[in-house]
Amino acid sequence: MNAMITKLDSSQADFKQRLDTLLAFEASTDDAIESAVGGILADVKKRGDAAVLEYTNRFDRIPNGGATSMAALEISQEEMQAALAAIPEAQRQALEVAAHRVRVFHERQKQELNGFTYTEADGTVLGQRVTPLDRVGIYVPGGKAAYPSSVLMNAIPAHVAGVEEIIMVVPTPDGVKNQMVLAAAAIAGVTRVITIGGAQAVAALAHGTETIQAVDKIVGPGNAYVASAKRRVFGIVGIDMIAGPSEILIVCDGTTDPDWVAMDLFSQAEHDELAQAILLCPDADYIAKVEASIARLLPTMPRQEVIRTSLGDRGALIKVRDMDEACAIANSIAAEHLEISAAEPQQWADKIRHAGAMFLGRFSSESLGDYCCGPNHVLPTSRTARFSSPLGVYDFQKRSSIIHVSEAGAQTLGKVAAELAYGEGLQAHARSAELRLK
Amino acid sequence: MNAMITKLDSSQADFKQRLDTLLAFEASTDDAIESAVGGILADVKKRGDAAVLEYTNRFDRIPNGGATSMAALEISQEEMQAALAAIPEAQRQALEVAAHRVRVFHERQKQELNGFTYTEADGTVLGQRVTPLDRVGIYVPGGKAAYPSSVLMNAIPAHVAGVEEIIMVVPTPDGVKNQMVLAAAAIAGVTRVITIGGAQAVAALAHGTETIQAVDKIVGPGNAYVASAKRRVFGIVGIDMIAGPSEILIVCDGTTDPDWVAMDLFSQAEHDELAQAILLCPDADYIAKVEASIARLLPTMPRQEVIRTSLGDRGALIKVRDMDEACAIANSIAAEHLEISAAEPQQWADKIRHAGAMFLGRFSSESLGDYCCGPNHVLPTSRTARFSSPLGVYDFQKRSSIIHVSEAGAQTLGKVAAELAYGEGLQAHARSAELRLK
Repeated sequence: MNAMITKLDSSQADFKQRLDTLLAFEASTDDAIESAVGGILADVKKRGDAAVLEYTNRFDRIPNGGATSMAALEISQEEMQAALAAIPEAQRQALEVAAHRVRVFHERQKQELNGFTYTEADGTVLGQRVTPLDRVGIYVPGGKAAYPSSVLMNAIPAHVAGVEEIIMVVPTPDGVKNQMVLAAAAIAGVTRVITIGGAQAVAALAHGTETIQAVDKIVGPGNAYVASAKRRVFGIVGIDMIAGPSEILIVCDGTTDPDWVAMDLFSQAEHDELAQAILLCPDADYIAKVEASIARLLPTMPRQEVIRTSLGDRGALIKVRDMDEACAIANSIAAEHLEISAAEPQQWADKIRHAGAMFLGRFSSESLGDYCCGPNHVLPTSRTARFSSPLGVYDFQKRSSIIHVSEAGAQTLGKVAAELAYGEGLQAHARSAELRLK
Repeated sequence: MNAMITKLDSSQADFKQRLDTLLAFEASTDDAIESAVGGILADVKKRGDAAVLEYTNRFDRIPNGGATSMAALEISQEEMQAALAAIPEAQRQALEVAAHRVRVFHERQKQELNGFTYTEADGTVLGQRVTPLDRVGIYVPGGKAAYPSSVLMNAIPAHVAGVEEIIMVVPTPDGVKNQMVLAAAAIAGVTRVITIGGAQAVAALAHGTETIQAVDKIVGPGNAYVASAKRRVFGIVGIDMIAGPSEILIVCDGTTDPDWVAMDLFSQAEHDELAQAILLCPDADYIAKVEASIARLLPTMPRQEVIRTSLGDRGALIKVRDMDEACAIANSIAAEHLEISAAEPQQWADKIRHAGAMFLGRFSSESLGDYCCGPNHVLPTSRTARFSSPLGVYDFQKRSSIIHVSEAGAQTLGKVAAELAYGEGLQAHARSAELRLK
């Protein structure tokens, strides 16, 4: 029998290499998927609604002979409100608490980005204006992995940013609608919900059809077809990052209940077999306790098969020299979720430069952040936290520079611009500046 | 003989369609380039410096039998400072004024993004931390289109953001170094300059080699090989937008000297044959005057052939009903550069939702902004200003969420998270939250 989870020690000679191997993940590209997606995008661009209808009826097996119009695939605001009224009271309250907290956090984000202007001595005004996108599309997966929390996390930042039209697409395989997803859409301020999915939905959002106006950006997770389609329409519209498998890295000083740490590792591992859950700890005895907790708790988990594969293939318990080394390794991993499960977490948090979200202290389980703390749960994966950020209000805003040069300003700036323009061999640039000189 | 520039009128029945045709631009993908780039990336990833040296000697025709080591391709800080001392005094001063103004504007940008934290009644702390990228690569084209202003515009925001290491790559075809580019690198705070280019330089920056540490993001313009390579390494590193042809849209109320507007159109058109220069104006007589200015001034321009082709193929003078309609069309075009050349420009600027940079009033020629106003000249092209922003300090920073839940906070949040997690069928998420309940 294989070990349940890999154990490493940073003092091993080949530690760096073994860690790199463990972390390595390359998204495979499937030629059959690429080719199918290329065809669907071109077809929807050309034939619009008719193509979207055909693909939806076929791929999502819409019952009763299929939908005969796009109108039949749209969920009315009344139906969304009915879903909100129909779900159990406890679920509705939980969704509303979560939505409220997400909104409060993202409103704080919005306050930070107001734009600015400043006026120079000669009257020249310079600045930056921040404006929302006009219209965005939110992709929500259907079927098994239908997550109402994702609806909140994608739609609320757009709503807070001031986006006028938020179009949500969600496939309904076999015509089955997820009431909690529709309830979340009602709470989050979604403008339209259309029950389409796959590359055909991405194509409709990017290119527009008779019934769907083209959007400016598409966000939200999806399967390989959706990811491929998003990559291909990038440039025509904006997209969020293409997410890799989800990851948790726990840096623990050995003072947290080992069961808590084991369950936090499970909460990442249960997402799918490719998810990655890693513990860094300087205390070998503590690591042994976490290992024992894993062995004892795993059989109690409904998704134990997924967890077992994920932990076995991609998980690790790593003994480090000290907490400083743990922080250094955490910076090189740049994890999506970083728990600093320690007695005085701030001292270690101060040493972290790269992480999608930091969960400080033993009460901050990742699962709280996934649902209802307020910060977004859409986070950079696969080491991209080195250069990218959680999904936020700023993803639904853009900046424009403001340049208002006074007559006096044109005299001084014109000479500088002309000098540099001649140096670059761009004479019309130079003349354009010189014409404004008195 | 063809008309020098297309003339359109918004009252024409087919105006919308003609405008769409004029604006249409699809970047072609060349299979030969794609295949060559794929091979170069894989080879540099595998063989490192040796491969970079080989490609550089071959493609850039490095003289004297080629470089024999990467060290021979590196420009020392002394050589950069020597270039700064060697260029004409007027050029040096112009570069320094431009760099200073760019720095001041971008420092203002940095002030806006400080991150935040807030503490809730139960002691839970939530927030957002903003940190710089560790290491970035800046691609600077060599040969004909070597622009020192681009060095300033790409490197200064990274420097202001606090990036520790800024690695600039610039090819030197036939071994020829551009002294003004090196001087700009000295002024802008570039850490290392390596005289390599093409896909091999992008590969070296993205994957790292024996002498070049892998960077976190690559920015800067390049030819089709560079653009293809950047697209392919996106995800391993961050990249800026892949730029399309440059564009100017001038909204004019007919009160600006027609020669100024003609020259502003030229200043865009002289970039290359695919550049786009468009005027929107409600005054037919004024449009005729601009047309006459174009005819009179064009023969005086050294780059008249490029300008003639650009204006002939992609330019337009468009008569609109009124300034309000001009603003509506400007929003649909979402131009990279938008000049509002009018007596009271602010009233029209208030109606603009989408533009990379807005140049207000008749003294704000685009060329001033290209060089020395302060805002960045790297701007979203091809209608992407609908969803993206000028290059800025924020492109060299990223955010991390901070979640520090108190013991009391875990009691209320834990119940909400567990309710939603059970609803999504993620039991380990639920248990992880419930373990923290008393």
